[in-house]
Amino acid sequence: MSRSAASNLLRTNDETLPSRLARSAAAKESEVTDWAALHAWIDERNQEQTHEVHRIPFGELVRWEIDQETGNLRHDSGKFFSVEGLRVRTDLGPVRTWTQAIINQPEIGILGILVKEIHGVLHCLMQAKSEPGNVNGVQISPTVQATKSNYTRVHKGNPVPYLDFFRSLESRHVLTDVLQSEQGSWFYRKRNRNMIIEVDEDVEPHPDFRWLTLGQLNELLKFDNLVNMDTRTVLSCMPAGFEGAVGDGTVSLALASSADPLSGSLHTTSEIQSWITTRQSEHVVHANLVPMNSVHGWYRTDDEIRHDTGAFFSVIAVDVHTDTREIDGWSQPLIQPYGTGVVALLVKRVHGVLHALVNARVEPGYLDVVELAPTVQCTPENYDALGLERPPFLDFVLRHGSCPRLFDTELSEEGGRFHQARNRYQIIEVEPDFAAEAPPDYHWLALHQLNGLLQHNNYVNVQARSLIACLRSLR
Amino acid sequence: MSRSAASNLLRTNDETLPSRLARSAAAKESEVTDWAALHAWIDERNQEQTHEVHRIPFGELVRWEIDQETGNLRHDSGKFFSVEGLRVRTDLGPVRTWTQAIINQPEIGILGILVKEIHGVLHCLMQAKSEPGNVNGVQISPTVQATKSNYTRVHKGNPVPYLDFFRSLESRHVLTDVLQSEQGSWFYRKRNRNMIIEVDEDVEPHPDFRWLTLGQLNELLKFDNLVNMDTRTVLSCMPAGFEGAVGDGTVSLALASSADPLSGSLHTTSEIQSWITTRQSEHVVHANLVPMNSVHGWYRTDDEIRHDTGAFFSVIAVDVHTDTREIDGWSQPLIQPYGTGVVALLVKRVHGVLHALVNARVEPGYLDVVELAPTVQCTPENYDALGLERPPFLDFVLRHGSCPRLFDTELSEEGGRFHQARNRYQIIEVEPDFAAEAPPDYHWLALHQLNGLLQHNNYVNVQARSLIACLRSLR
Repeated sequence: MSRSAASNLLRTNDETLPSRLARSAAAKESEVTDWAALHAWIDERNQEQTHEVHRIPFGELVRWEIDQETGNLRHDSGKFFSVEGLRVRTDLGPVRTWTQAIINQPEIGILGILVKEIHGVLHCLMQAKSEPGNVNGVQISPTVQATKSNYTRVHKGNPVPYLDFFRSLESRHVLTDVLQSEQGSWFYRKRNRNMIIEVDEDVEPHPDFRWLTLGQLNELLKFDNLVNMDTRTVLSCMPAGFEGAVGDGTVSLALASSADPLSGSLHTTSEIQSWITTRQSEHVVHANLVPMNSVHGWYRTDDEIRHDTGAFFSVIAVDVHTDTREIDGWSQPLIQPYGTGVVALLVKRVHGVLHALVNARVEPGYLDVVELAPTVQCTPENYDALGLERPPFLDFVLRHGSCPRLFDTELSEEGGRFHQARNRYQIIEVEPDFAAEAPPDYHWLALHQLNGLLQHNNYVNVQARSLIACLRSLR
Repeated sequence: MSRSAASNLLRTNDETLPSRLARSAAAKESEVTDWAALHAWIDERNQEQTHEVHRIPFGELVRWEIDQETGNLRHDSGKFFSVEGLRVRTDLGPVRTWTQAIINQPEIGILGILVKEIHGVLHCLMQAKSEPGNVNGVQISPTVQATKSNYTRVHKGNPVPYLDFFRSLESRHVLTDVLQSEQGSWFYRKRNRNMIIEVDEDVEPHPDFRWLTLGQLNELLKFDNLVNMDTRTVLSCMPAGFEGAVGDGTVSLALASSADPLSGSLHTTSEIQSWITTRQSEHVVHANLVPMNSVHGWYRTDDEIRHDTGAFFSVIAVDVHTDTREIDGWSQPLIQPYGTGVVALLVKRVHGVLHALVNARVEPGYLDVVELAPTVQCTPENYDALGLERPPFLDFVLRHGSCPRLFDTELSEEGGRFHQARNRYQIIEVEPDFAAEAPPDYHWLALHQLNGLLQHNNYVNVQARSLIACLRSLR
């Protein structure tokens, strides 16, 4: 029961939110957590949360086993996730039928950021969190990042801090609460709940957590591998309308125009919806879980499941020692991608309104055939290993030339599942007449159109969401 | 490529649309098709499109066969649809594990209405179409109603009239283009593309088609079994903002307020989104296709597949003779539901704003666990046959009492798949304090909130979409 149901009171959305978010985005400094304290805290958390991670054979995994009948790698509780096979048939792309390994994690987890006005400025309660697959030590993570197995405590660890704010919503001010997909090449229909909850009351302090402004988070995004994937996706689902409001450059102006539906756009929102529906209707993708034993072109050794060519990714097993997590140590499988990915968004200004070139992309693990992806999202080595033609715009991005790079940082994917999954995230500005006639799977969208889609499930993929968080950080 | 992409022109949505739709809804008379001509046309089409439908044993179906290995009923082309088994596990409801028969129709069809301003009033090009399962003769159907097998001409029939308007969208004015589900108890993840396309050019006449105003369609909705399901779902996806604009009663006023986001509502739109996300996240539903042979509690005779108790539905086979369709005659399976369904929406005015009580309902064939359903949607006989407790609000709806019925008509489901699937569709107005504390699966929504969700895939189920079309018809 929501707080107002019994009162017969008519209510509307919080109209003050865009300006309150803009104020937080403008605040590069915080009265609560200054930069010296912030850096010191990250260093200190890195000392505190040392993870020793060692590769082990699958046979040494505790409570994880390879099922004799299926060849699937699973936890003995049946919870967490499993590595299974996927059989895919599709009507597009260079390869139309294949089997592959995939992570099956049917449970819906929570990625939640708690926000609160402190001294009149919205702050986000961020966590310094180490994960076994992280490139460096801790990364800036959401307040809560919990699988259902975590928060129902299948592994009997400590309770997840601040979880209750996201579990009982009756009297909460919910800014965002939407289901979003994760990597559709690696996960079978995995989704997490992306939540932002605003509170007024006092919140218990905890050494792993600090209150940061949006302006501070935006600065942290410029560091390689520091703001984690879960933070990026939750930030991208933040209600919109504040973008570009605080900068003084022409990029800010173009962003602000792009966030405003009244500015207009190359395609109307009805046309964009119709384009997405067309792509969803025209592509046929059948993806079915099958036993890992029946997957062709992949083989398993004592300590690795990998593709014959070495491309795509391997499944490995690690042993983790730590003394500051919910439990002292554990072992688990991790996915180790091959190569460093290129994730790039081309943007251009049309009559002063910023547009982004997005790709209606098919990935076998998506719930609904296609999601909107960045202009380029690939690991070039995979194409080379298989001798395939490179995807559109990749060579343009790699050549770069003189186009301004508005954003260029190496960011990594979720370290709880992936071993050092690095991607170079870039936003590159091109001339207004660039790719005016884009291929049918590509369209130029204004930011307000992406923002509208982000309030709903499964339109925008996780790589594009990361880049939208980065785009919003530009001044 | 959309028509504007190359021109670098910034555009916004068509702001004139709500007033143009309101004008059409106000027009109970048309200068193109007057009521005498309309009735005469329906009579004449009924004469012209006589269908002789006879039940036959499965063995007499042409090109349909029961697969020996699986027991599935399928077309020998592998196209159209098949009747298969479904195994369901869920964590809610009176029965938590079951197997059942289900229709598997993975292809996405087109349900499209062509609209055009004639003498300054928008008209819809409607088709008088007979289907083998129809209760009476022809029903008022969309311009195009075609499965992929239809329009790619698997059965080698005549081409579908006007299909090209919905297939090449480059220079089209697309008002609506969205994928929506159909009955999730009968279909496994079936979806159709709901499209409305506006044209300026001349459109070739055809004896099965007439131009009607929205006002005329709204009048036709009051007749039992006359406006077909496909018309109702497409109308519900029509862009919003015109509701109640043309009536002179207090219901019109409450509808108009309800269609306007500025009027406010009991729950904010963020809260509604969060409620839907909560229901999607908390319910676990695993539904997998299995061979029909492995389904328990159902048995097959020579001419029927039915549940042991006779409840739910049967699969039958019919032979159809006609001489005016794409082909002369054919045979096909049909689903014959048990009993007449009750589909009711409770509405109330809160400070003059109409709210509807919707149910976040789980059906095994939905793509995404839950969709929003009417307050009541069931066949009471099924509950009686199985000795189950009746669902919330059913007894209230059946008792009716003195509450005003704003709408009360028997409408039937798609006659191309269902044999005389009748439902009594009702909109009943209750007092403002009714069910202020509704069960957690129910929420009171304003019309603008439902309208917003209808612009996206898979939020509102087909029965609720029918009732929204009916709600919009009220004056």
